[in-house]
Amino acid sequence: MTPEEFRAAGHQLIDWVADHRARIPDLPVAARTRPGEISGALPVHAPQEPESLEAVLADLDAIVVRGVTQTQHPGFYGWFPSNASLSSVLGDIASGGLAALGITWQSAPALTEIEQVVTEWLRELTGLDPAWKGAIQDTASTGTLVAMLAARERASELSEHAGGLQSVAQPLVVYSSAHAHSSVPKAVLLSGFGSDNLRFVDVDPTTYAMDPKALEAAMAADVAAGRKPAAVIAALGTTGTTAFDPVAEIVPIAQRYGAWVHVDAAMAGSAMILPEMRHLFAGIDGADSIVWNPHKWLGTILDCSLLYVRDVDHLVACMSTTPSYLRSSADDQVVQYKDWGIPLGRRFRALKLWFHLRLEGVEAIRERLRRDLANAQWLAETVAAEPDWRVLAPVDLQTVCLRHEPAGLDGEALDRHTLAWADALNASGTAFVSPSKLDGRWMVRVSIGAEATERSDVEGLWAALRANADAAGTQ
Amino acid sequence: MTPEEFRAAGHQLIDWVADHRARIPDLPVAARTRPGEISGALPVHAPQEPESLEAVLADLDAIVVRGVTQTQHPGFYGWFPSNASLSSVLGDIASGGLAALGITWQSAPALTEIEQVVTEWLRELTGLDPAWKGAIQDTASTGTLVAMLAARERASELSEHAGGLQSVAQPLVVYSSAHAHSSVPKAVLLSGFGSDNLRFVDVDPTTYAMDPKALEAAMAADVAAGRKPAAVIAALGTTGTTAFDPVAEIVPIAQRYGAWVHVDAAMAGSAMILPEMRHLFAGIDGADSIVWNPHKWLGTILDCSLLYVRDVDHLVACMSTTPSYLRSSADDQVVQYKDWGIPLGRRFRALKLWFHLRLEGVEAIRERLRRDLANAQWLAETVAAEPDWRVLAPVDLQTVCLRHEPAGLDGEALDRHTLAWADALNASGTAFVSPSKLDGRWMVRVSIGAEATERSDVEGLWAALRANADAAGTQ
Repeated sequence: MTPEEFRAAGHQLIDWVADHRARIPDLPVAARTRPGEISGALPVHAPQEPESLEAVLADLDAIVVRGVTQTQHPGFYGWFPSNASLSSVLGDIASGGLAALGITWQSAPALTEIEQVVTEWLRELTGLDPAWKGAIQDTASTGTLVAMLAARERASELSEHAGGLQSVAQPLVVYSSAHAHSSVPKAVLLSGFGSDNLRFVDVDPTTYAMDPKALEAAMAADVAAGRKPAAVIAALGTTGTTAFDPVAEIVPIAQRYGAWVHVDAAMAGSAMILPEMRHLFAGIDGADSIVWNPHKWLGTILDCSLLYVRDVDHLVACMSTTPSYLRSSADDQVVQYKDWGIPLGRRFRALKLWFHLRLEGVEAIRERLRRDLANAQWLAETVAAEPDWRVLAPVDLQTVCLRHEPAGLDGEALDRHTLAWADALNASGTAFVSPSKLDGRWMVRVSIGAEATERSDVEGLWAALRANADAAGTQ
Repeated sequence: MTPEEFRAAGHQLIDWVADHRARIPDLPVAARTRPGEISGALPVHAPQEPESLEAVLADLDAIVVRGVTQTQHPGFYGWFPSNASLSSVLGDIASGGLAALGITWQSAPALTEIEQVVTEWLRELTGLDPAWKGAIQDTASTGTLVAMLAARERASELSEHAGGLQSVAQPLVVYSSAHAHSSVPKAVLLSGFGSDNLRFVDVDPTTYAMDPKALEAAMAADVAAGRKPAAVIAALGTTGTTAFDPVAEIVPIAQRYGAWVHVDAAMAGSAMILPEMRHLFAGIDGADSIVWNPHKWLGTILDCSLLYVRDVDHLVACMSTTPSYLRSSADDQVVQYKDWGIPLGRRFRALKLWFHLRLEGVEAIRERLRRDLANAQWLAETVAAEPDWRVLAPVDLQTVCLRHEPAGLDGEALDRHTLAWADALNASGTAFVSPSKLDGRWMVRVSIGAEATERSDVEGLWAALRANADAAGTQ
């Protein structure tokens, strides 16, 4: 395809994207296709001859769009916000157009240095200590894995450069809240610690935040048994209820035992750009690593997760390999991000953050987050005031955990009721919420914060919640 | 930004991209900025108020473009091809426009199922056995890490679900060619095996391919010493010289010792779409995992690396975590790609492969690869026929390893000469090649295969090679 053919096709595609984004409020929120429906609609073999863009766009409309949950829909309250601001989409298009290859600083100095600039901008905007240095990872899963590898290597005195974890005699142990995200056990298991050496520490029964006394007791028991605490993962904003583990209390405990502290603030990290929310993150500067995702609430299109560390030299010692064909006379003066993560080749992801922050401006992003916080407070207060409805966890952020509890229903019958009305609501296409378990029982998470969601949408959701719950109750 | 604002900005940006791609042949190939030049040109603080797209595009022109090595330039012969077909760029734009969130099949069935379709298309196009199942990873570094984790878990009987690698008494050992890519030791070290348990097996002194006798001897010695072979990584197309390790001989040896065989065909894998090149890959169906990168020679813009495995159940057993809030009634009927790799959240990367294959058609891609193979043969023959010039390794693929060896120059003096003329050529801006070490001495890799590179460009390169070598020789 020549640049001129691309120009024509690109204009067509931009129009398709603009039209698509404009129609999203009219689409069902949740994807509606049956397993195999989409793959079954496509040819079994690759095309030998070129097809037209029109044919491909027609397939997008006919086959693809209904197979995508519309996270940009004003009725999207599922999982966590997954905003893709159109400013950041433009940055991603620029990244594709430049087609930079980020393997070393030398291969694309702009890719590296703009990443340094935007991660430093966000370091400052989030109020973190200047000692933190950031890099873009694809997701928090990867960032947490990198952090666990760094923790493993610190606890094992860089065993990877000797006999490996398999040569370490004293078992290394990792601690996290029982409410940690699934990426936490995954990172611990992939790092080789083993599930036997992962402690899910009890949480406070009302706040769902990690109990620091239980953490200290677990560490003391492990040390008494001859094991070595290697890392603590503190969740600032858990996935289930956006609980904030007390990192200010966790850090001194971990330091006493020599354990690495990793903060998973994947969702809540965006709130650090609001000075009035920083109290929730008190003590974070004492951690060793932090991961948070601009591709969630902040709105920079997936994939854009930030990993900050304090000890860059240690991270590089864990992750670096530098063969002769990647040599550069500039090596001592520059950052080599290949040594801050797993992939060698990196896309120019800093552009989507750069476009996003520049085209939106920080103040407008702050105002949007404040709107969402106020909407969540409104919903929580409204639900709490309604008979038969309960708010199940503190609403510190923008996620409301709720349940309809009509008189006479409990246990598994209540579970069936909850899943029935939540599934009916999701099937309606007007909204999408995430049923989830809390204390062993199903509840519904309403995670407010899609870029398009206004107060009127949340009011509409509340009406829909009640209507679906009432309808399910009469069946 | 509203859809209508995006429409206007998107059209502007598409024109910028088309203009940029059209001017690439007139740009210097290698990036030219000094360390800190780009970061120093940017504001220290993030913008509080919105800026215009014009301001951002002006910065792209004034600051960013010269800080990017132009891998799409017809004079790009560095590292390996990193083609970004404009068809695949369109697919990436569609991915951004759809903003799908790939965390489970349920969150975006189209994202999962089109990935199944295109990886199956490419499985068939590359002539692999139907038992192989593929997934898109970001890079070969990540794919190889996932393969090493799977190998570790097979050798340790899923130790991650018990005491971890640290509980395994018998040391596990990994083997690769001494010419393996830097991502191979990185994957082995990150997996926890330790550098003491990584054997770099000797290569044949003329083909630079792994010596299977040396592999067998190394395995036998480890077993005799009480260690356990866990994995062999065979490179099909090494980074240094595109040597092909004899996988047909490696597989039965590895199987005898119970070791996982991972094939790193990151660059060369694209050649499998040419039936006449498949002899180089003979025996590949006996491996346990394969990684190859459509984002290199095939031309699907970074990041698009394919990992194929035969035992999906084992891979999923290593990588899966499924909490209740990701439950789906469809779980038994669908593929959950989160369990095939590290990240939970995945972009809709299948679209760039889908657009690329549909808008180009397979035949045109095959013809382009054949053009590059013929160009490499032409250059190799031309260099070999010239006094004082040598081709240093077999040219099985599209990379020519060469050196100018004027009479009387050897050892470090020859190294200085090689680096002098290669650096002068790269500084000229007309071409970019990768100096690299082979047998302890510097040589120059000319890796042909940029989408834009025609025979006339390679002829021009040959003239430039001689001119720069002659000029360096007279200094």
